[in-house]
Amino acid sequence: MDLNALAKANPEHWSKATAIRALTLDAVAAANSGHSGMPMGMADVATVLFEKHLKFDASNPLWPDRDRFILSAGHGSMLIYSLLHLVGDAQFPLEELKNFRQMGARTAGHPENFLADAIETTTGPLGQGIANSVGFAMAEEIQRAQYGKKIADHFTYVIAGDGCLMEGVSQEAIALAGRHKLSKLIVMWDNNNITIDGPVTLSDTVDQVARFKAAGWHVVEIDGHNPDQIDAALTEARKSDLPSMIACKTHIALGHAAQDTSKGHGALTDADQMAAAKAAYGWTTGPFEVPADVKSAWEAIGARGADTRKEWEERFDAMSRTKREEFNRALAGDAPKKLSATVKAFKKQISESAPKLATRASSEKTLEVLNPLYSETVGGSADLTGSNNTKTADLGVFDIDNRGGRYVYWGIREHGMASAMNGMALHGGMRPYGGTFMCFTDYARPAMRLAALMQVPTVFVMTHDSIGLGEDGPTHQPVEHLAISRATPNTYVFRPADTIETAEAWEIALTSKDTPSVLSLTRQGLPTVRLEHKNKNLTEQGAYVLADAEGKRQVILIATGSEVEIALKARDILQEQGIGTRVVSMPCMELFAEQDEAYRRRVLPAGPVRVGVEAAVRQGWDRWLTGERGKWNKADFVGMDRFGASAPANELFEKFGITAQNVADTAKALL
Amino acid sequence: MDLNALAKANPEHWSKATAIRALTLDAVAAANSGHSGMPMGMADVATVLFEKHLKFDASNPLWPDRDRFILSAGHGSMLIYSLLHLVGDAQFPLEELKNFRQMGARTAGHPENFLADAIETTTGPLGQGIANSVGFAMAEEIQRAQYGKKIADHFTYVIAGDGCLMEGVSQEAIALAGRHKLSKLIVMWDNNNITIDGPVTLSDTVDQVARFKAAGWHVVEIDGHNPDQIDAALTEARKSDLPSMIACKTHIALGHAAQDTSKGHGALTDADQMAAAKAAYGWTTGPFEVPADVKSAWEAIGARGADTRKEWEERFDAMSRTKREEFNRALAGDAPKKLSATVKAFKKQISESAPKLATRASSEKTLEVLNPLYSETVGGSADLTGSNNTKTADLGVFDIDNRGGRYVYWGIREHGMASAMNGMALHGGMRPYGGTFMCFTDYARPAMRLAALMQVPTVFVMTHDSIGLGEDGPTHQPVEHLAISRATPNTYVFRPADTIETAEAWEIALTSKDTPSVLSLTRQGLPTVRLEHKNKNLTEQGAYVLADAEGKRQVILIATGSEVEIALKARDILQEQGIGTRVVSMPCMELFAEQDEAYRRRVLPAGPVRVGVEAAVRQGWDRWLTGERGKWNKADFVGMDRFGASAPANELFEKFGITAQNVADTAKALL
Repeated sequence: MDLNALAKANPEHWSKATAIRALTLDAVAAANSGHSGMPMGMADVATVLFEKHLKFDASNPLWPDRDRFILSAGHGSMLIYSLLHLVGDAQFPLEELKNFRQMGARTAGHPENFLADAIETTTGPLGQGIANSVGFAMAEEIQRAQYGKKIADHFTYVIAGDGCLMEGVSQEAIALAGRHKLSKLIVMWDNNNITIDGPVTLSDTVDQVARFKAAGWHVVEIDGHNPDQIDAALTEARKSDLPSMIACKTHIALGHAAQDTSKGHGALTDADQMAAAKAAYGWTTGPFEVPADVKSAWEAIGARGADTRKEWEERFDAMSRTKREEFNRALAGDAPKKLSATVKAFKKQISESAPKLATRASSEKTLEVLNPLYSETVGGSADLTGSNNTKTADLGVFDIDNRGGRYVYWGIREHGMASAMNGMALHGGMRPYGGTFMCFTDYARPAMRLAALMQVPTVFVMTHDSIGLGEDGPTHQPVEHLAISRATPNTYVFRPADTIETAEAWEIALTSKDTPSVLSLTRQGLPTVRLEHKNKNLTEQGAYVLADAEGKRQVILIATGSEVEIALKARDILQEQGIGTRVVSMPCMELFAEQDEAYRRRVLPAGPVRVGVEAAVRQGWDRWLTGERGKWNKADFVGMDRFGASAPANELFEKFGITAQNVADTAKALL
Repeated sequence: MDLNALAKANPEHWSKATAIRALTLDAVAAANSGHSGMPMGMADVATVLFEKHLKFDASNPLWPDRDRFILSAGHGSMLIYSLLHLVGDAQFPLEELKNFRQMGARTAGHPENFLADAIETTTGPLGQGIANSVGFAMAEEIQRAQYGKKIADHFTYVIAGDGCLMEGVSQEAIALAGRHKLSKLIVMWDNNNITIDGPVTLSDTVDQVARFKAAGWHVVEIDGHNPDQIDAALTEARKSDLPSMIACKTHIALGHAAQDTSKGHGALTDADQMAAAKAAYGWTTGPFEVPADVKSAWEAIGARGADTRKEWEERFDAMSRTKREEFNRALAGDAPKKLSATVKAFKKQISESAPKLATRASSEKTLEVLNPLYSETVGGSADLTGSNNTKTADLGVFDIDNRGGRYVYWGIREHGMASAMNGMALHGGMRPYGGTFMCFTDYARPAMRLAALMQVPTVFVMTHDSIGLGEDGPTHQPVEHLAISRATPNTYVFRPADTIETAEAWEIALTSKDTPSVLSLTRQGLPTVRLEHKNKNLTEQGAYVLADAEGKRQVILIATGSEVEIALKARDILQEQGIGTRVVSMPCMELFAEQDEAYRRRVLPAGPVRVGVEAAVRQGWDRWLTGERGKWNKADFVGMDRFGASAPANELFEKFGITAQNVADTAKALL
């Protein structure tokens, strides 16, 4: 590249973009760690985006109608940190850049949404940003349908690298965006032809332009270092009625000795090479020094949206109070006023009618009652609507001609669904939930983990949660998936035993602000076990005494979900033999762990033998069986220690010994 | 559809295809469960494939040079079961079809490779079959390069549905196949425009033909009910020098009242509708009855490849004894003769030189010694070759002009890599291993689970296995991933403490025949802790006493991987204070669990307090801490109970309290 020519062609642009490059080099050198090349390659694109297109106000990064900027290629985090510093975001003083990747800094190795307001999502695991963005763009559409263009009218801009486009989830994302003509989604592809292992062609020869066109996108190809072309492409993309992909031909690590090489992807810390690059840029200030004129040009960019924001605020204030309150409530994630009373009334009715229902059907019944209270719940399923029971009549279907629809047919795309749901939650004003078979937790895992890390309350509706699904066999029978979700920090895993617990779980999931929920629901019918109505949400305590021992308490059976019924029957067997047996229902281990020790001891007192019952692996159970803090009990577990099999469900429970008789025998063997 | 016209146009074909449809209807009705529509829709394609193209011999389904047939749309399992019964596969008598989806039958809900020889892979989780097939096709290329076209010259045929093509992993698969011009891979897409939720257009409008072309595939579009078109397309595909996709326009549940509807996807059991469909087919025999002439026509198809197989066997026998033995050894998964001696010599040398190495580097050193013993190891990485240390010089790089290369640059495609590796292992004659960061277990999960379920010894090289990776931060720091892999049945999870244990883990992984292995390896340097050479593979016992207590044994510290060093230092602190402390290294919990109780008690005797140390979540540890079978010990755990952070590794270990001092203090607090 002839840097001189670039600099001369547009000196003002050049100095602004160079500030990004110089700060990136300095911060990576200070950390002796990080990725220099991507911000250096995409500095021109980002500069034009921020200067001429992105609707934002650096003084108010949470303004609801801002455009969203998502750095899907999260390893290039110094791009976003440099930009935020330069535009004058108060959370990004120079000190933050100097502490890049250090303990406690906002400038983490990869952008983390919970560390700074202006960081819309957490990226780094490739493909997540672009898949999140589908949810962002859908949320914008729904919000616009609900509140009008004056209140919601913003773009979602994404910078994605080759890695994002190679990850399978990107296909799920672009197919969804194309299907729904998400025209306010604009992806800028950093087409630098370099991955860590070498040139992209080492592993990929896909014609990305043709691929995006096949998915129904508007595509433009440009020189990613030419500000005029960048500007024109963005202008064109904003006008398109399709989602847009701008293929930006760039040079990774532009101007550095490592330009256009894999080495350029990583940390460029060699002092001489850094000096040479800066000299080539015509950049003469010291480390972390941005010339005052350049800084103030950037700060003007940061202030550029202030008036637009104020106008928006005026329009917002002009809305009816009801609308304003609803908008703000949904944005804050607060519960609708009637939620608590509605749940209580529903529980009361169920405890009286005591239906036998699969908990997936219990979930649908709950949603039928709760969805109408919300404007922000957005349901969906990865092509298992009738099986996951996720659709209620009032939602409407999200579609090109029905942007206010709040049910999404995600197609056979568990990963894309989960990631897009995270995007909706991050956008704000939406509470997404989506269903698949629990076994396909595996497909959704990368996004389920990120929901937990990002502290967003996405709800994963996982039905067919054990061998109870029967004939579909071991490929579809989860045995380790409860353990997988329970092993993940900041995740509530609910395995309700009946309709009442299901409603309680939904109430917690739909009021959570920082924690995603996994609802583990049965295919097979279950009796109502909570026959005595209580206003109190017992699931909130994680575990509770469902049926206490008659006579001397010798046994405690702890069970979840479909195995609570089995534990109750085992209790009958034991009580008949004069063995006092308590049954504890434990719909949420994480919430039980959060209770104070006194409560936990009350539910699980030391002394009686304990048997855990769950049609899943034992991992995660020992804490509740052998006792906490060394208060040991004789204990055992009835569950699965291998993959399931294809056969009718009742035969499988027999085969694997998950029966009342076996539970009773197991308890007796311990006495 | 005018079924009469179809029947008249080619009556012999029609009756053969109809046999599949009728058997499918009967088996699903008998089970009252299953998926009728797909086999009914793809019966014509499958019939032509089996009759005119597939190289196979029903009497010898394991013949190594057979073409592979993969039903990626695994829910349509009655297609493959019908075919195998019809062609006379001895494992599929009529009784099996009558027991469809019943306990103990080979005819499981979804095809399971471990239940029948002719079932090449386990499908059902969508997209897996097509991604496996990339590995099958690569394995064939490598085998051909090694043994010549006379020995290895077979096609991989795949039937994939809309669901397979929507799953992201399909994009990873088709991009890889296109990149490597896997011309012997032929995918037949069941283009029926139906998913469970409704028409495909509900969630997808991708132009699949353009998409595959963009990935470098040869594409043909045909009427999937026209045998001449099917035959011509397959002929053309076999000639192409690109991978081929045949878009077969079909009618799901052809001829049934549910034809072309979502209902047709499921179990079609209505007796009247079944009778009507059979009448429309002109099929007059009773349930499960195939007219003798049709059955013998199919059996002739099953026998058609016998001569070809015999000719192959003659060519095989004509190879040199060395080549034959090598081929058979690799196919059987047996170890090279020199393996054991080589590992011992390597361990001896390491125990003497006692290098300080990250275990990912230990892994590379081990592979440098072991790979040259093998012709069948196939290494690779999802674009982290230099970080995963998976490449050794002798392997060569698999490429279009180097088909014998045994290292694959998989690109940023963890899922596709894992699934294709499974395909290689299933093909036979290959031992695949591939690397990524351990955190990206999440991306590879669906295929890692299937490796365990399918009982194939794929090796997953997971480096950067804790907060020890440092600055990349929590998106890249696994905390729950050891628990996730350990929760999965039939999986060995190795977390070696040094180079010796790494070599021992590799020896086990590379001799395993039925169990996949996860190698959890550090980014950061670790000292050699096994300074006394032992020929015996101690890792094979799962856990062992690394350093025993001096004086009265009061404490047992149990640690894995990078935390063994910390445990040893904690032991120093405790011993200095006169507290006798044993350190147990536990590189593989699963293998320790397999030891007899006497050994387990010897390593972990009751009495001393126990502290587990692992930079990961506690889940899975309690069994080893509080004791088995009620032999309780005071115990605690030092590890992670939350996500990590972005900072230098040593600061993170301090921050999260994973230090020798804290381990010592924790133990003392229990005394």
